Amino acid sequence: MTKIKEVKNALGRMVPVEINGQAVVPYKGIGKHKPTGRKHAPRIYSCADYPADGDKRVKSLKDALIKCGLKDGMTISTHHHFRNGDLIANQIFDIAKEMGIKNLIWYPSASFPCHEHLVPYLEDGTIHHIEGSMNGPLGKFASLGKMKGVGVLRSHGGRYQSIQDGEVIIDIAVIAAPTADPFGNATGDRGPAACGLLGFALADSQYADRVVVVTDNIVPFPCIPWQIHGNYVDFVVEVDQVGIAEKIVSGTTEITKSPDRLLIAELTSKFCDEAGMVKDGFSYQAGAGGTALSIGIFFEEILRERNIKARFIRAGSNKYPVKMLEDGYVDYILDGQTFDLEGVRSMRENEGHVNTSPFTSYNYHGKGNFTTLVDIAILGATEVDLNFNANVVSHSDGYLLHGIGGWQNCLFSKCTILPIPLFRDRIPVIVDEVTTICGPGELIDVIVTERGIAINPLRKDLIKKMKGSKLPIKSIQELKEEAEKICGKPKKAETTDKVVAAIKWVDGTVIDVVRQVKI
Amino acid sequence: MTKIKEVKNALGRMVPVEINGQAVVPYKGIGKHKPTGRKHAPRIYSCADYPADGDKRVKSLKDALIKCGLKDGMTISTHHHFRNGDLIANQIFDIAKEMGIKNLIWYPSASFPCHEHLVPYLEDGTIHHIEGSMNGPLGKFASLGKMKGVGVLRSHGGRYQSIQDGEVIIDIAVIAAPTADPFGNATGDRGPAACGLLGFALADSQYADRVVVVTDNIVPFPCIPWQIHGNYVDFVVEVDQVGIAEKIVSGTTEITKSPDRLLIAELTSKFCDEAGMVKDGFSYQAGAGGTALSIGIFFEEILRERNIKARFIRAGSNKYPVKMLEDGYVDYILDGQTFDLEGVRSMRENEGHVNTSPFTSYNYHGKGNFTTLVDIAILGATEVDLNFNANVVSHSDGYLLHGIGGWQNCLFSKCTILPIPLFRDRIPVIVDEVTTICGPGELIDVIVTERGIAINPLRKDLIKKMKGSKLPIKSIQELKEEAEKICGKPKKAETTDKVVAAIKWVDGTVIDVVRQVKI
Repeated sequence: MTKIKEVKNALGRMVPVEINGQAVVPYKGIGKHKPTGRKHAPRIYSCADYPADGDKRVKSLKDALIKCGLKDGMTISTHHHFRNGDLIANQIFDIAKEMGIKNLIWYPSASFPCHEHLVPYLEDGTIHHIEGSMNGPLGKFASLGKMKGVGVLRSHGGRYQSIQDGEVIIDIAVIAAPTADPFGNATGDRGPAACGLLGFALADSQYADRVVVVTDNIVPFPCIPWQIHGNYVDFVVEVDQVGIAEKIVSGTTEITKSPDRLLIAELTSKFCDEAGMVKDGFSYQAGAGGTALSIGIFFEEILRERNIKARFIRAGSNKYPVKMLEDGYVDYILDGQTFDLEGVRSMRENEGHVNTSPFTSYNYHGKGNFTTLVDIAILGATEVDLNFNANVVSHSDGYLLHGIGGWQNCLFSKCTILPIPLFRDRIPVIVDEVTTICGPGELIDVIVTERGIAINPLRKDLIKKMKGSKLPIKSIQELKEEAEKICGKPKKAETTDKVVAAIKWVDGTVIDVVRQVKI
Repeated sequence: MTKIKEVKNALGRMVPVEINGQAVVPYKGIGKHKPTGRKHAPRIYSCADYPADGDKRVKSLKDALIKCGLKDGMTISTHHHFRNGDLIANQIFDIAKEMGIKNLIWYPSASFPCHEHLVPYLEDGTIHHIEGSMNGPLGKFASLGKMKGVGVLRSHGGRYQSIQDGEVIIDIAVIAAPTADPFGNATGDRGPAACGLLGFALADSQYADRVVVVTDNIVPFPCIPWQIHGNYVDFVVEVDQVGIAEKIVSGTTEITKSPDRLLIAELTSKFCDEAGMVKDGFSYQAGAGGTALSIGIFFEEILRERNIKARFIRAGSNKYPVKMLEDGYVDYILDGQTFDLEGVRSMRENEGHVNTSPFTSYNYHGKGNFTTLVDIAILGATEVDLNFNANVVSHSDGYLLHGIGGWQNCLFSKCTILPIPLFRDRIPVIVDEVTTICGPGELIDVIVTERGIAINPLRKDLIKKMKGSKLPIKSIQELKEEAEKICGKPKKAETTDKVVAAIKWVDGTVIDVVRQVKI
């Protein structure tokens, strides 16, 4: 195998000019890569080729895949609304294996530990490689250089962008739907396996050549609401169980009890308030981790005290934002992914709990998206460097263990804050150089740790606003030194030259790569 | 000017092989034209080129049009949700005239008498031609051969198809929206000029190069619901009044009082019932004319008596279907266009009153559409011939005076019924040859007149079912003779050879043309 040429991108990272045989563009800086082409143009279909009675049901998933023309080298997409409760992706590749199909590309919107089942198919060549997050076991497999192709990780918005722009052409999309009608209209907000919404499958439905909806709850036409339009769907398959809804639960789902985390949450909300960001009509996005949830609780307290209201919460919803909505502290939840069953119930019941998608919220190659309208984004990171560049996919030992999710997209909010512990398992989080750059420091405004808050020097406005604050404002250098005083200087991960995964930026350029871990 | 070659299409009509300089395909028969290409691929945009604060407002419609690069020869689209209360289309061409722009193509989803204002622009070359229905004055203008280009009439579904397939490439779409946010999310169901929905502008928003939303009711982001996604929108313009909502009223909006029409309505509903079509879970589509409304009332009576329920009404909604929904006689209204303010209210208030679009309901170049799922479609016609071919756009004097609307699309229902008077103004409706063929007789199942019901001989199943019925079942030949006995044989329209408008079939082929009226 000849070594692929590598070039230095705008963040100083060496990245290959070609990935899986396809030319790629190195990261050029924020907003610097201007797309010039046209969107992917799917084939023109004709109603003459679809059943006149609108009944697109076929007898099994296998039957549907055969009718879709499943063959070697195809790209198969699935979505992750069931998270670790997904039952369908594994079945697809069981069928492919049984049929002797090889070299498939799996293009999930995210993968989870339940997909460890696919490791043998990565080994025997049924699956060539995965494009999508590789949480846990699959990430470890890839990190050790065992995957035949190079993994490609994208943000949720980047996934929409890549499909829209024709970077990834999906041959068959399989959409697991908690409720559907025989025409293929589908929704996630009701049915025995209700998981909330199906927005991650939107691009797949719009652009894939063939689309299969799998459900365990067929209703007579029309399935209302139709989060997925049957007009994009080729086949409908009925199964006994389409997913395990209880397993959509993500994060701790409870506010943190750790004194350090609670302190971080308190510092974060105080910072936001002192900087004048928590005001009538403001908006924020926070994840489902214990710290993020606690920040939400602090925000709610401020709203209650001042008798004001947030305009919207961008979510990952769960019971906490739902309660704020139902108590009248926020007008809208703009939801991309429900993280518990209260979120699912609310999406079904509350008009103000709105179904969104990576198209509306995150796609960088649209005429704007929602992220830039969010006042405060609360995000995480595994590592942050002195330039505020951050990592969310790998650990300091070099292992790729997490997906990007909406993280890169949310960096475009008006104020991006990373509330993070100064160290984890005695490994400092603030480092000289992150193992993998997932987001450029220019977009990361504030780091909040239990021992102090660092404001990005680029945010002169925030620095000015916080002058005279009693909050522990420090430089990021100071925070790093404090951590190193306690834990020592962390070792760098040891890797070979081999690229095992590429990290795409929101515009499709390559911001960094993950290299094989040396063992 | 050299005469363009004409060929005979599958219905025996002579049609040109080229229209406005673009090659066209003659009608080949139902489902016979198989598209082979790919959908129109719009340019890839970048968020880097849109305001980071999401505020896309510019100071005036003129400013927006200039920023869109308005220039000679462009195609400008508008939608007709305000029907005869549209205030925006005329302004666009006032601005174009003022700027000295020439040869524009106007691509409305329909035009109305209020657009007579544009006649001078058709005369002076500001507008080259209109693609879209030409109701009333514009139709008369075109019929007299005065338009510079050839008009192209499409069904609502055909309009979506033509945009999707790249037959018509829209340079600038202007969407009049009763409520919008500065990002361009827009809805028709609320605001001072609430008109219901904006589905006719969906294709325009998805495929036009530049999209302008005009509104008189700006709300803070997010505008919920977002019938139009701001992610497709370039500019937002605030105006004092965006449309006259009261003028959306279409049809008589009252059930008929004419004894003949009432008889037709009664015969139609009895026919449907005897044929076993009015049953639990059935569906129908009916227009807003007095006869159609009365048929709905008859259906409702049957449902009430038998304590059963319709599954859905495809509409054009107004107070009658809304009452059925609110009284529990139907699960859903799948609405494409609200015909009165009760319809608007219901769309805002009732979860079961669902916003649809020509994409979901009518597009023939999709993976199925809703029309084939409708049990009974009640439609009109200006003329029907002995082969059940029907005309909806022109009168027997040759004048093009009506649009196609969803008529062609609805022909694909399971049973298409035309309840029509045997004659109008002493001119028979059933004729040897219709002035303009808009729909092939194969798809028209039943003609109901005040003097008898004719079943299409192709529907052997219906003929069998109605054996022994006391309803006045006759042959279409008999009905024609009865009319001619009363009114005499109608004269054929006198026309020149000049093609003034083409009628497209749902698949983009040319089913017929309208020729210049000889005066």
